[in-house]
Amino acid sequence: MKIALIGAGRIGKVHALSISQHPDAILSAVADFHTPAAEALAAEHGTRVLSADAIFADGDIDAVLIASSTPTHADYLEQAARAGKAILCEKPIALDLARTRDALQVLEANPVTCALGFNRRHDPQFAALKQALVEGRIGDLETLTIISRDPSPPPAEYVGISGGIFRDMTIHDFDMARWLLDEPITHVHAEGSCLIDPAIGEAGDVDTAMVTLTTASGRLCHISNSRRACYGYDQRIEAFGSAGMLQTQNESETRLRFTGEPGQVEEKPKWFFLERYAEAYSREIGDFVDAWKQGHTPLAGAIDGLEALRLAEAAERSLKEGRRIALDDIH
Amino acid sequence: MKIALIGAGRIGKVHALSISQHPDAILSAVADFHTPAAEALAAEHGTRVLSADAIFADGDIDAVLIASSTPTHADYLEQAARAGKAILCEKPIALDLARTRDALQVLEANPVTCALGFNRRHDPQFAALKQALVEGRIGDLETLTIISRDPSPPPAEYVGISGGIFRDMTIHDFDMARWLLDEPITHVHAEGSCLIDPAIGEAGDVDTAMVTLTTASGRLCHISNSRRACYGYDQRIEAFGSAGMLQTQNESETRLRFTGEPGQVEEKPKWFFLERYAEAYSREIGDFVDAWKQGHTPLAGAIDGLEALRLAEAAERSLKEGRRIALDDIH
Amino acid sequence: MKIALIGAGRIGKVHALSISQHPDAILSAVADFHTPAAEALAAEHGTRVLSADAIFADGDIDAVLIASSTPTHADYLEQAARAGKAILCEKPIALDLARTRDALQVLEANPVTCALGFNRRHDPQFAALKQALVEGRIGDLETLTIISRDPSPPPAEYVGISGGIFRDMTIHDFDMARWLLDEPITHVHAEGSCLIDPAIGEAGDVDTAMVTLTTASGRLCHISNSRRACYGYDQRIEAFGSAGMLQTQNESETRLRFTGEPGQVEEKPKWFFLERYAEAYSREIGDFVDAWKQGHTPLAGAIDGLEALRLAEAAERSLKEGRRIALDDIH
Amino acid sequence: MKIALIGAGRIGKVHALSISQHPDAILSAVADFHTPAAEALAAEHGTRVLSADAIFADGDIDAVLIASSTPTHADYLEQAARAGKAILCEKPIALDLARTRDALQVLEANPVTCALGFNRRHDPQFAALKQALVEGRIGDLETLTIISRDPSPPPAEYVGISGGIFRDMTIHDFDMARWLLDEPITHVHAEGSCLIDPAIGEAGDVDTAMVTLTTASGRLCHISNSRRACYGYDQRIEAFGSAGMLQTQNESETRLRFTGEPGQVEEKPKWFFLERYAEAYSREIGDFVDAWKQGHTPLAGAIDGLEALRLAEAAERSLKEGRRIALDDIH
Repeated sequence: MKIALIGAGRIGKVHALSISQHPDAILSAVADFHTPAAEALAAEHGTRVLSADAIFADGDIDAVLIASSTPTHADYLEQAARAGKAILCEKPIALDLARTRDALQVLEANPVTCALGFNRRHDPQFAALKQALVEGRIGDLETLTIISRDPSPPPAEYVGISGGIFRDMTIHDFDMARWLLDEPITHVHAEGSCLIDPAIGEAGDVDTAMVTLTTASGRLCHISNSRRACYGYDQRIEAFGSAGMLQTQNESETRLRFTGEPGQVEEKPKWFFLERYAEAYSREIGDFVDAWKQGHTPLAGAIDGLEALRLAEAAERSLKEGRRIALDDIH
Repeated sequence: MKIALIGAGRIGKVHALSISQHPDAILSAVADFHTPAAEALAAEHGTRVLSADAIFADGDIDAVLIASSTPTHADYLEQAARAGKAILCEKPIALDLARTRDALQVLEANPVTCALGFNRRHDPQFAALKQALVEGRIGDLETLTIISRDPSPPPAEYVGISGGIFRDMTIHDFDMARWLLDEPITHVHAEGSCLIDPAIGEAGDVDTAMVTLTTASGRLCHISNSRRACYGYDQRIEAFGSAGMLQTQNESETRLRFTGEPGQVEEKPKWFFLERYAEAYSREIGDFVDAWKQGHTPLAGAIDGLEALRLAEAAERSLKEGRRIALDDIH
Repeated sequence: MKIALIGAGRIGKVHALSISQHPDAILSAVADFHTPAAEALAAEHGTRVLSADAIFADGDIDAVLIASSTPTHADYLEQAARAGKAILCEKPIALDLARTRDALQVLEANPVTCALGFNRRHDPQFAALKQALVEGRIGDLETLTIISRDPSPPPAEYVGISGGIFRDMTIHDFDMARWLLDEPITHVHAEGSCLIDPAIGEAGDVDTAMVTLTTASGRLCHISNSRRACYGYDQRIEAFGSAGMLQTQNESETRLRFTGEPGQVEEKPKWFFLERYAEAYSREIGDFVDAWKQGHTPLAGAIDGLEALRLAEAAERSLKEGRRIALDDIH
Repeated sequence: MKIALIGAGRIGKVHALSISQHPDAILSAVADFHTPAAEALAAEHGTRVLSADAIFADGDIDAVLIASSTPTHADYLEQAARAGKAILCEKPIALDLARTRDALQVLEANPVTCALGFNRRHDPQFAALKQALVEGRIGDLETLTIISRDPSPPPAEYVGISGGIFRDMTIHDFDMARWLLDEPITHVHAEGSCLIDPAIGEAGDVDTAMVTLTTASGRLCHISNSRRACYGYDQRIEAFGSAGMLQTQNESETRLRFTGEPGQVEEKPKWFFLERYAEAYSREIGDFVDAWKQGHTPLAGAIDGLEALRLAEAAERSLKEGRRIALDDIH
């Protein structure tokens, strides 16, 4: 599978490495508005630099991995779909529902394999949790608790263009919730505070949030977010059901344990998503290649991006209005 | 300290044992509507049976431990206060705010040492968590997560007289939240479902609930309840702050670990509160005796019962009305 | 059961408390060469002071708990046996085999219930390990690993009268090995070094030791000792077999976990045997009372003291001669 | 660095993959007595098949990775050294000391970069343990405990040609002990039994062993081996010192935890060395490439193979003679 990469930034580099290590994938070209970045990455992987337009025009290229800045995602996605390329697009497609729906319509009209970069679905631990749920390990799922904390807050200027914590950060947790709850979410309630950086509050956002989701059958889901966990990236899920409980645990570099002052000490969790989800990014490329070759649906697709965004909209509205929002009211 | 016990049921027996093992406490008498129960317990501890009235009239008795059925608490508490006895009263004082407030007025008019049976404050692990918070171990507290699940649901007939899950079960978590958050709670949001036993729903209650509390400074607290955890009593608290996180863990009989089929296996958590909080009940008596002897305030008092009940009221109203409730609206 | 206590020192106090809390035991008298110590302990438990001779002469006393200094154990044990008292004797009976055998002969001639204070057999975790072995949880036991480290070394002057590390400290591990291996031990190999305190070496002893035991069927057992573990009392056993592995873990005051600098931190193990084996001491009294009342053999008896001492002798000889010793050669 | 691989079996495949993923290494050729194996592996990595002779003759090849069968190691190593190739040789160089010494002489006469495949030194967890020791995290190292158990025993026919458990299996633990103890080992004592498969005993070997090592300064080291741990590959090290203890833990596929029947369950350890040491094999290639490029000594070299073999010889002799062996007596 010949894959062209658009976007040679931090996450683009991760994908370039994963592509180059996949036995059935070839990094066919790299594009970036900032040409030196494209050139450096292309050189590192022994491939060429192309413009985005040239990529879409090149009949030899099978797929496009869109890892450019968020505002460009929807346009590139539509161009790629029209060019008949398979697509792996970093989330989100867009920060608003209307633009996202437009892109989905283009995909509908131009059916290609389209995967969305909800990387956590590919994480071995979360995948094992999902598998155990499917196998009925805990009987009927009743409640879900998602802890999701970043190691350090983004600069306030980023907050302004991020779309807010629910679209920027919680969006991953909404996707996890949808994937694991496995039935329609009907209501959303959100609380939020600005406890870490006043500049975030001045930018109109919160840095600490708690969201409660309710499903059609009455399952309850709690999401707890913070923009700053001084000890690293805190990513845990607890699924509770009629026959037991499943819990994922944070991962650390090694399991070495020291006993002495000040106690029994193990390493802090891995610092951030590049370390924590390294394996997930690699598996994401594998899933994309498999989906394209075998014609099945990728683990996360464009519709999942739309639905997670609806939950983010509902949470934002709940926080503003101080009440629980019915998801049916989010169009 | 000569303590008379009113109520020779399950929890009365626990208190009788704690009193008899405390070096400075004497179990001076036992009362129970059901005389054979009082007689058996009195015999076991080598003490006498008295009526409640006789207890209040006996000038030699220093204190009364009220462990009778909930509807009798407020009356006994008032009688004891008027008789000038120190009081350790099992929670709740009453299931409604008006009756509770009346009892508090009697206490105000008759100032005696009065402790309320919020046993969890005396648990070594939660006490160590509180101590670490006070010492600033995690900097500024930002969020609190309380998981609280009973091993098995009560019979539906009990549900009808229990006052509902928030007054009956979450009340302990509300007290933990108040104690650990250590500042005014301003808003309450609750979601609930009946997922375990339809009879509970028919009795007008839920068996699965999630509550979100907000404090004056913006701290957020999540409480997750279930009436049935097949693996035992699930009681955990996670406190997250600017400088780290503190987590309590469930306790089990022993820490023996088996590795083989089906994996690395440790024991299930202790089954229910009598096992889990055995040490807490013992320390509760110790705190009560100390408070009386040294004239200081017990770790949990009558006002804590009132305030926890207000939170329960707010949660119930939130669940009914599908919106967030300002605690100021609960009188 | 009316029990008289001989020896009002550190361990005597522990036993006095356990006796007073046991529903079927009464602390009938306390004796100690140092009268003020006996008086203080007797006063604390509301009992009387007697001389050892008076205890043996008092027909109303059922049992004697010998917790005096080691050199007096054998004499008191013999006197108690001749007086027909049930006996719970702190280990060791004596530091040499000949004196121990003599005492056993007296016991044979005067058959009374006689328990030896190998407290670890009564520890809930080790008892659960034993139970799991008996139930075949790990199939055939193949190897046993015993880690046993004291928090801090004894003063060198004590070392001189202690009988050496194998008789004084490893003796407990030899008893655990015998109890868990559950078949004749045939060979002993020991290595030892003085790494902690040169004064211990000058007193002719080692402070760090490793012993290997071999059983008749070829099971292997490793014992690792140190006189100083800066983090507390390190007491762990790992049993490995054809169907799995069982491991005990150190215990700490609470299971509170902190995550932050310098990592994920749990408390250090409990500091020493009084904390770690508090429950074991209490159960030891329970087992003694039961054995006496029901006429069965206590969990650890005088013969277990003799056999553990033979292993200590073999280890000492092995260390001196730099070779493996057949236990048959230790008479 | 152009590396030719001799040996296309199980471990050869692992190395081929590591080489192909290393940015500075190229898999230049593959050789194997069994030509189809060489052809398949070469095809998979897009390289050519060469005979061993052709490899040594090819001036363009920088290095040879010897992963063929044990009896061929020493010959290939000598040929490679004489051809001036850098060498990464799987352990052991040979099963006897004389042949090993001959190979070392050839290396001395033909100084090339020569790494020996003691993969565990490259494991992240053991490397972190070593680093912590070097940094003095536990003060002075006093004792070392190495648990090393294979998941299932080799076929008895393999046992016959393996050189015995000490040369075949414990050899890795001897290397770990040497690396971590970091001072001369002076004495070796070994015990062994045949508890798993009588055919192993008939082949003159043991399947369960315990070895005790003593160093010049009196440090003690215990090694515990079994040929069968039903739950997977059990590889743990505990280092104990004056200021604390360091423990590595087994690794599992994920850290997912289930609570329910039969308890709190985490996954079994990874099954065998290919899974457990996957990262170590990759780092081993990295260390080899770095050593060659920068002219420094690899983490494990030929001399380490010789010294570990001397310990194996001593252990074998100790087991046979039932006594402790001075390492000076092993020539």
